[in-house]
Amino acid sequence: MLEKSIKNIKPLNQDIMAQVKARVDQLIKPQGSLGALEDIVIQLSGMVEHPFPMTNQKAMIVMCADHGVCDEYVASAPQSVTLVQAKNIPRGLTGLGSMAKQCNAKIYAVDIGINSDFEDEYVIPKKLMHGTNNMRKGPAMTREIAIKAIETGIEMAHKAIEEGANILGTGEMGIGNTSPSTAILSVLTGASPFDITGVGANFPEEHLKHKATVINDAITCNNPDPNDPIDVLAKVGGLEIAGMAGTMIGGAEKGIPVVIDGFISTVSALIACAIAPEVKNYLLPSHASLEKGAKLATETLGLKPYIHMNLRLGEGSGALLAFSLIESACYMNKEMITFADGGIDIV
Amino acid sequence: MLEKSIKNIKPLNQDIMAQVKARVDQLIKPQGSLGALEDIVIQLSGMVEHPFPMTNQKAMIVMCADHGVCDEYVASAPQSVTLVQAKNIPRGLTGLGSMAKQCNAKIYAVDIGINSDFEDEYVIPKKLMHGTNNMRKGPAMTREIAIKAIETGIEMAHKAIEEGANILGTGEMGIGNTSPSTAILSVLTGASPFDITGVGANFPEEHLKHKATVINDAITCNNPDPNDPIDVLAKVGGLEIAGMAGTMIGGAEKGIPVVIDGFISTVSALIACAIAPEVKNYLLPSHASLEKGAKLATETLGLKPYIHMNLRLGEGSGALLAFSLIESACYMNKEMITFADGGIDIV
Repeated sequence: MLEKSIKNIKPLNQDIMAQVKARVDQLIKPQGSLGALEDIVIQLSGMVEHPFPMTNQKAMIVMCADHGVCDEYVASAPQSVTLVQAKNIPRGLTGLGSMAKQCNAKIYAVDIGINSDFEDEYVIPKKLMHGTNNMRKGPAMTREIAIKAIETGIEMAHKAIEEGANILGTGEMGIGNTSPSTAILSVLTGASPFDITGVGANFPEEHLKHKATVINDAITCNNPDPNDPIDVLAKVGGLEIAGMAGTMIGGAEKGIPVVIDGFISTVSALIACAIAPEVKNYLLPSHASLEKGAKLATETLGLKPYIHMNLRLGEGSGALLAFSLIESACYMNKEMITFADGGIDIV
Repeated sequence: MLEKSIKNIKPLNQDIMAQVKARVDQLIKPQGSLGALEDIVIQLSGMVEHPFPMTNQKAMIVMCADHGVCDEYVASAPQSVTLVQAKNIPRGLTGLGSMAKQCNAKIYAVDIGINSDFEDEYVIPKKLMHGTNNMRKGPAMTREIAIKAIETGIEMAHKAIEEGANILGTGEMGIGNTSPSTAILSVLTGASPFDITGVGANFPEEHLKHKATVINDAITCNNPDPNDPIDVLAKVGGLEIAGMAGTMIGGAEKGIPVVIDGFISTVSALIACAIAPEVKNYLLPSHASLEKGAKLATETLGLKPYIHMNLRLGEGSGALLAFSLIESACYMNKEMITFADGGIDIV
């Protein structure tokens, strides 16, 4: 399935993009004065192969999973918070959930590996493991499960798109997940965990060195191959990180934009683009997370976040905020008149 | 009227702000992890004196005026564009107008000094002059008219609020208005026009030195008193710049937040805060404009823009985009549960 999805990803339609760029340059404003909004709508038109793209049907796919590495004290909150929040998110009670009401975004909360058995009408059951294994002691998951987790993300992207979504956002809930994200970033970039490990959800500064040591140990113990993204994901990654990478691949396959959130999500994007570089054409950035590794992750990916609000919650909260900006770009393109329409003989 | 409005501005309600901060710190997320969204909602609660502020009734007040200094070749577009766009904006055909549909913002387009006589059902007639006088040759307007222009802004803020607005954005349309804005910024900060003059609406780079010379001449010719903001406004300002300052004062008077746009609007904010420092409590930033002087203006004001999208259109387009972010902050505060509500015994 993963191979098939990757093969299905088309390059952006350059003809339509050129056509939209030409028209955007004629809209009744100084050329280029709407900056990234112009870039967004040109890119979107190439994705959906339509000169007037619209992103009014918003869906957040929130992958929820636990992490065996929590045994090593790398997070302040207990693992049980993952389950509590997985239930709260689709009910609109969390940071993401509450703000989804502002922009009318649909939320798909997915149990891709929460460490407990439960049934909940609002959480989609796709559990692959009861949390990953402790990566300090061995691989977080098998290669097979890593691939299945990616495919679960693809499947969820397809589901949301079939149910009407014309833009997807990637979110996550997983206590401890800055540790595998930092491990992946370290392996992919060569940066030392001691330089890029951050506090995540308010982990005490004085124990950061311990957290970095655990991450460093996990890399040393598993020796992931930096040129094999699935190997990295399996050995020092997480189920929700794999799931988000899958969502990006699944969105790209269907020609639908996928919005990246903060640190965890950007690391997922690095994995997705390492697996299938053409995915990158379908990704849009959102916010510049305060988490320490986020800057390196974003720079490595090469996308410039629009929103600078010192957010570091995750859940997909920053991606959600970007939905309105992206939709505004669609309105700009769709509703603005050209200089010629306005009877002005200048550009 | 101006004096009365200034006297009516109340300090933020610190008790309610403390109460909201305490509750925001208990919401089911790592403390502080929603960054500026948390700051926004705390500040809003102090403005409206309510623990659950909401900014769902959005109004953009767009002040439109012409500039006599256009005689000196400081803009590429002809003055007639001001009128064309003043009519297009409330019809939803411009950058601002088109994007206002995304967030359902009401637009008040105000003729505060367009250089032609016309009637238009969508443009509110408040003309004080047929464009300002050429500031290179003398004062742009009299002190009396500068005050009237501010009062027009106050009046329009009151009108929008009476008609239901619970948040205001400031916008402008005025071919040539980066020149008076740069002049004001130069007088207020001491920066040389030769260091801070930018291209505005794609003015040719090779003529920037001429534009800076005109601005410098205007300051030398009029010798405005940097300690008297109304003197600065009258001598080297613009009617729409004064009007926007008035909108900020009028919003503050009524305890309603006012969102700053880009360069012109930030300069108006500097004037408004120089006239009445307590206005600043009611201002929210929006985007970091690409216009050259914007960075200095923003740093002088001391507010950090949320949106970095390389915008430089004006009209209020960046303020409009910020409406959704600010409204999201209100939803976060209003809809999120606390740790205690969620049955989690940690912070």
